[in-house]
Amino acid sequence: MQLNKEILEKFISPDNSNRESVQETISKLTSQILDFLTDASNYSPYPAFTRFTDPYFTIPDLPKKDVQLTESVKEILAHSMNAANPKYIGHMDSIPTLWSILGDYLASAINNNLLSLEMSPFLTQLEYSITKQFSTLFGLPDASGGILLSGGTLSNLQALIVARNEVLHTPNGNCFSLQKEPVIIASEHAHASIQKIAMLLGIGRENVVKVKTTQDAKMDIADLEYQVTNLLASGKQPFAIVATAGTTVSGTIDSLLDISALAKKYSLWVHIDAIYGGALIFSQKYTHLLAGIEHADSISFNPQKWLFVAKTCSMVLFRDFQNMVKSFQVAAPYMKAQPEFINLGEISIQGTKKAEVLKLWLSLTSIGKQGYEQLIDYNLHLTKIFTEELSKRTYLKVSSQPELNIVCFRGEPEYIGDHAYDQWNEQLQGYLLKNAGYFISLPTYKNNVWLRVVLLNPFFKKEHINVLFEHIDAFEKTYR
Amino acid sequence: MQLNKEILEKFISPDNSNRESVQETISKLTSQILDFLTDASNYSPYPAFTRFTDPYFTIPDLPKKDVQLTESVKEILAHSMNAANPKYIGHMDSIPTLWSILGDYLASAINNNLLSLEMSPFLTQLEYSITKQFSTLFGLPDASGGILLSGGTLSNLQALIVARNEVLHTPNGNCFSLQKEPVIIASEHAHASIQKIAMLLGIGRENVVKVKTTQDAKMDIADLEYQVTNLLASGKQPFAIVATAGTTVSGTIDSLLDISALAKKYSLWVHIDAIYGGALIFSQKYTHLLAGIEHADSISFNPQKWLFVAKTCSMVLFRDFQNMVKSFQVAAPYMKAQPEFINLGEISIQGTKKAEVLKLWLSLTSIGKQGYEQLIDYNLHLTKIFTEELSKRTYLKVSSQPELNIVCFRGEPEYIGDHAYDQWNEQLQGYLLKNAGYFISLPTYKNNVWLRVVLLNPFFKKEHINVLFEHIDAFEKTYR
Repeated sequence: MQLNKEILEKFISPDNSNRESVQETISKLTSQILDFLTDASNYSPYPAFTRFTDPYFTIPDLPKKDVQLTESVKEILAHSMNAANPKYIGHMDSIPTLWSILGDYLASAINNNLLSLEMSPFLTQLEYSITKQFSTLFGLPDASGGILLSGGTLSNLQALIVARNEVLHTPNGNCFSLQKEPVIIASEHAHASIQKIAMLLGIGRENVVKVKTTQDAKMDIADLEYQVTNLLASGKQPFAIVATAGTTVSGTIDSLLDISALAKKYSLWVHIDAIYGGALIFSQKYTHLLAGIEHADSISFNPQKWLFVAKTCSMVLFRDFQNMVKSFQVAAPYMKAQPEFINLGEISIQGTKKAEVLKLWLSLTSIGKQGYEQLIDYNLHLTKIFTEELSKRTYLKVSSQPELNIVCFRGEPEYIGDHAYDQWNEQLQGYLLKNAGYFISLPTYKNNVWLRVVLLNPFFKKEHINVLFEHIDAFEKTYR
Repeated sequence: MQLNKEILEKFISPDNSNRESVQETISKLTSQILDFLTDASNYSPYPAFTRFTDPYFTIPDLPKKDVQLTESVKEILAHSMNAANPKYIGHMDSIPTLWSILGDYLASAINNNLLSLEMSPFLTQLEYSITKQFSTLFGLPDASGGILLSGGTLSNLQALIVARNEVLHTPNGNCFSLQKEPVIIASEHAHASIQKIAMLLGIGRENVVKVKTTQDAKMDIADLEYQVTNLLASGKQPFAIVATAGTTVSGTIDSLLDISALAKKYSLWVHIDAIYGGALIFSQKYTHLLAGIEHADSISFNPQKWLFVAKTCSMVLFRDFQNMVKSFQVAAPYMKAQPEFINLGEISIQGTKKAEVLKLWLSLTSIGKQGYEQLIDYNLHLTKIFTEELSKRTYLKVSSQPELNIVCFRGEPEYIGDHAYDQWNEQLQGYLLKNAGYFISLPTYKNNVWLRVVLLNPFFKKEHINVLFEHIDAFEKTYR
């Protein structure tokens, strides 16, 4: 039996038999991508929704020619979210660095497996080095270290698994046999993943106790202590406090020093969800906002957000790397044990992993720490201008003073009455997309509809802010 | 404040200001990748280990020029696992289809987020359609459906979360409050991830009860029933049986019909780990080996293995899609609710996800069902030849008769005595790499050292088998 040539042509032949056709396919796709991305400002940031129904997506019986795939690529580009347009300022989805796109391309081409050193001899070493460097940047001690995971929920999850196993002394993770009911404490503005994780870990969704926040959207330290003592008095066992450095809706940073001190007082684990805000370690001017992060027992951080790395790319770091090893390591029978670079698949939620560290390293190398500092400072500079424009308008208010490059705001023009505020803001969002081509998100916050911008795109400029506010003013006038 | 041009150049400008330099960078990288991959047969499948130490990996302060990154790419290619060499037959790491590499490239370029429909209007629809088509291919009923996840452990995890919540009636996932201690039942040859998952889920590693296997490495049905009744009698609560369709070491498929029947008898959840073997649904000739899979409550399957899709790409499918929704859905405040395409991040372990469905769809379209059938049948055809060659040699034995394209075998030449078998096989592995350029893995199985081949590479031919056995024979002769 032999394979048809037509099928073999669908792979890059290791015997140099189809380089020309492969090269042509790649060139064609690269042209399509660049035709779109180099002109992304001229495509809507959020194209009108088109419903595709089968058989459009149907897996064909017979192989298709590249020309038919080229047609599909055209549709994909035309109907996807277009975060490359600088006026896409709705979510934490950044424009990726060129080298992060290429890092993924390269990682898939060589298809190494971060499961084990044997399956990724270069890239496993790279992951150890990069996570260690980030541990140091965050101010964690020598014994610290971490791992990369495919998204922030997994990083928070890995952190809280280790917290549960360590603090509750349940190395095998048996929650049924615990003496007291375990509880996770987090701010009411903590990420939704914390509840998902409590469900997943056998803790139970109901055992995420939510701490009140102050007017500036930060965890209320008095209420935090009240919750801890109350839980202890009622016979429950809080084991971890989750602090957030950059909440999803308003980019707020909890008081990390106060929270760490309190956790220490009650021997609780402090996990700092710095998924978004962690990027501030690169900014001399703003890194002080993370003061206290060096006291964390674990930190989660997503280069896929403010480091402009293509998703997914997330990391979790531990004050004591061995804590993570203890919770996870069960040697797999098909891999050789080796002590220096413990196989990453043995100490992680994920077994087989893509080399997501590659795009991160290439981006960091291409841009440098100082380049990242510039990008972050630039975003924060524009946020200041944005917030100043907001404060000039009495009909607009912010949910809390922005600390990062996220502004959560809403129109409350008195003349329409509170009952109509939600609708007004919803309509403003639609108006801005339709009339000015800006995509802004519409979060629910404290049971109301708000507007939210995330000023991530490096091609977003001061002029964009001016034009945006002209349109907001125009909308407001039509309403009077 | 303005960004330096040098930093902006690290992104693809949406205002068409750097297409030429971007194009050049991509062309250069593509040449490097193709120089290597089109000649992969001439590079060792497993290069000698080189220790890289910092500052090689150190994040620089200043941005680096592309030419320096090109140097790094050279090192990466030279020092990585080279699964593109047809003589790399050691692990389940396939050579990726061209369109799966390109799918990742495209997915990163547009950087859509499978978290929500709003953030990936085309790709969310695509994921719903593809998972539904696979549900149907596996014979699941109309109500079925699933989701893609970044690796097989996550798929097994998502399945067992839902199993736990459904069978134990604990929708919030509270294991502390259960009446009886929960237990997962799996074969002694089930994947190592099952224990990791039991730890993670709050079940406890010790509560994975391992069922004995018969001589052909399949779960022993009599022992399975014994374990179930024994657990029930002792007051524990088994809730799921994990059956495996393609074990890691020997590619064995459990008796899915018998296991499903038994699970039904005792009202237990059946999860079928078809991570590897699920690909057989594409082969008319061999799909019967999966008989019974249509009775599963959940199935995990990895296109990243035998569908030749670049990693990671995994899926989990549920007999009743709504079971998954019930276990997971907690609406996120920053997303609009919408009923038809529930935001994938709300019903999955992962929140933000890369569009891994894209490389899968492009591969399926490019190769077609019949193309995949050919690839799988070809691999199995060669496995038969390989096994025949093995059986001609009295000093070699298989761990069990191969059912898939995985052969676990070992030399036991009588004249050296049992005590020396492990060492003999270890040395054979090294000999084959050194003298013939074949990379074969060395699993531990039943406490002994074995050899293992996974015949995945479409460029692996009958001649490779002949040459391999010539070398095995030569090695054996030197030992006499």
